[in-house]
Amino acid sequence: MAPSAYLVGLVGQGVGPSLTPALHMAEGRANNLDYVYRTIDLNTVGLAPERIGDILTWARTLGFDALNVTHPCKRLVIPHLDALDDEAAALGAVNTVVFEHGRTVGFNTDAPGFRIGFVEGLPRAATSNVVLLGAGGAGAAVGHALLDLGTEHLTVVDLDVDRATVLAGELAARHRGTHVDASAFDKLSILLPHSDGVVHCTPTGMADHPGIPFDAALLHPGLWVADIVYRPLNTALLTAARAAGCATLDGGYMAVHQASTAFELITGITPNAERMSRHFRSLAE
Amino acid sequence: MAPSAYLVGLVGQGVGPSLTPALHMAEGRANNLDYVYRTIDLNTVGLAPERIGDILTWARTLGFDALNVTHPCKRLVIPHLDALDDEAAALGAVNTVVFEHGRTVGFNTDAPGFRIGFVEGLPRAATSNVVLLGAGGAGAAVGHALLDLGTEHLTVVDLDVDRATVLAGELAARHRGTHVDASAFDKLSILLPHSDGVVHCTPTGMADHPGIPFDAALLHPGLWVADIVYRPLNTALLTAARAAGCATLDGGYMAVHQASTAFELITGITPNAERMSRHFRSLAE
Repeated sequence: MAPSAYLVGLVGQGVGPSLTPALHMAEGRANNLDYVYRTIDLNTVGLAPERIGDILTWARTLGFDALNVTHPCKRLVIPHLDALDDEAAALGAVNTVVFEHGRTVGFNTDAPGFRIGFVEGLPRAATSNVVLLGAGGAGAAVGHALLDLGTEHLTVVDLDVDRATVLAGELAARHRGTHVDASAFDKLSILLPHSDGVVHCTPTGMADHPGIPFDAALLHPGLWVADIVYRPLNTALLTAARAAGCATLDGGYMAVHQASTAFELITGITPNAERMSRHFRSLAE
Repeated sequence: MAPSAYLVGLVGQGVGPSLTPALHMAEGRANNLDYVYRTIDLNTVGLAPERIGDILTWARTLGFDALNVTHPCKRLVIPHLDALDDEAAALGAVNTVVFEHGRTVGFNTDAPGFRIGFVEGLPRAATSNVVLLGAGGAGAAVGHALLDLGTEHLTVVDLDVDRATVLAGELAARHRGTHVDASAFDKLSILLPHSDGVVHCTPTGMADHPGIPFDAALLHPGLWVADIVYRPLNTALLTAARAAGCATLDGGYMAVHQASTAFELITGITPNAERMSRHFRSLAE
């Protein structure tokens, strides 16, 4: 019998070097699927992000099963969808569109990706009091995941304090009974000594944004440190955190689990996340 | 190492039930490729054949490696291509578009498909004097192939004698030193007794066009009969021809070899045509 075939794409700016295609395709092959995953880099093909609705139509016409959607289309795609799952609606951002019987349904696997990765990589970490650095789309997904994981007091910190305030308000509204505050970078010296952990969700530490997002002297052994940057896996922040005796979680966990969650949405098959993780780390190193 | 991945589509009207996708994908898998082949049925997606240029652009944007093109787009596609190989240019019809480094190059694998299939299935057949029934796109490709195979006198027969005359003129112009005539259906009783073979290139005998294209009483053991209809493989014409003692060639040969030739153009890998043929016959029966 012929194996099932899946056709998936990743739409965004600068997605050419993404490891997600290789992750999906290897897992598809391990499940005896014909699985082709293409990157559609808006910069390369010369399309404005606002064309995401057209891209959706073309992909549906040409027989795609799903698209992953990333920066800067995660919000732009929403008006073009027939339906939105609860998580994506709550976040106001979609990273996975599944074509189901001619309908387009939007999902967000960033929050579950962080949540599953956190439980796997820092299983005994205290989560009561956490600082979230970065109030962009990734920060929103991680903030949502943290409050689901039991965080009682979350402080959102961003260079743009207004953006931090807006996200804090959104998170608080969706997670009653929790405290979500916004704060400024210069308050980290007051916040971190009393926090269980900090999650870093800004681009600092990526290959083209080298550096460390805050003063390493603020790190202490009672603080766990999670970074969602995964290129490289060992950021300056994580290196400093390990040196300071912190438990750490690198960005590979979230990257693998957002992909494994998307793979399951697309195929209906539960992937072997351990295999995906091994594969991811062999590619990322 | 990750296997190579190929993404191919078939564009045309009524292509949903085509066996070509299964043929390509099975051969891709046998060559350890991730190979996804999608049908884009213009009727189903609600696009006019004149949109073929748009479909080409979308497919290129979304990362397709190639498109097979069939009725009614084989001629319509030509103005949208960057380059055309000699065979396609001579036929004025394209059935395979390969995306090469951002350029679109048109090929026609129908003529080589018939040629290779003929040599395989009727290796000792005389080809001096042949009647070609049907002056449409398939007839043009087959006529071209026959003249390449050594036919010295080809008679093109069509219900539309003007169409037969135009095709005969085109074929004669491209194959100097051969005789190519046009004739009417009612002349078959004069032509067939003196012919080595006849190739049937009209839709008669297809599942939705049942019947036999000419009077079976004209069949005789000195005549080979080739049908390019392949659904079903055993047409009424071939059944009658075998009963009359004719050597026969069914439409599966051309179908398999147009696909195997396209597969090689797309991947650069010479497929196992025998395996493709076995697979095709297991699907077609």
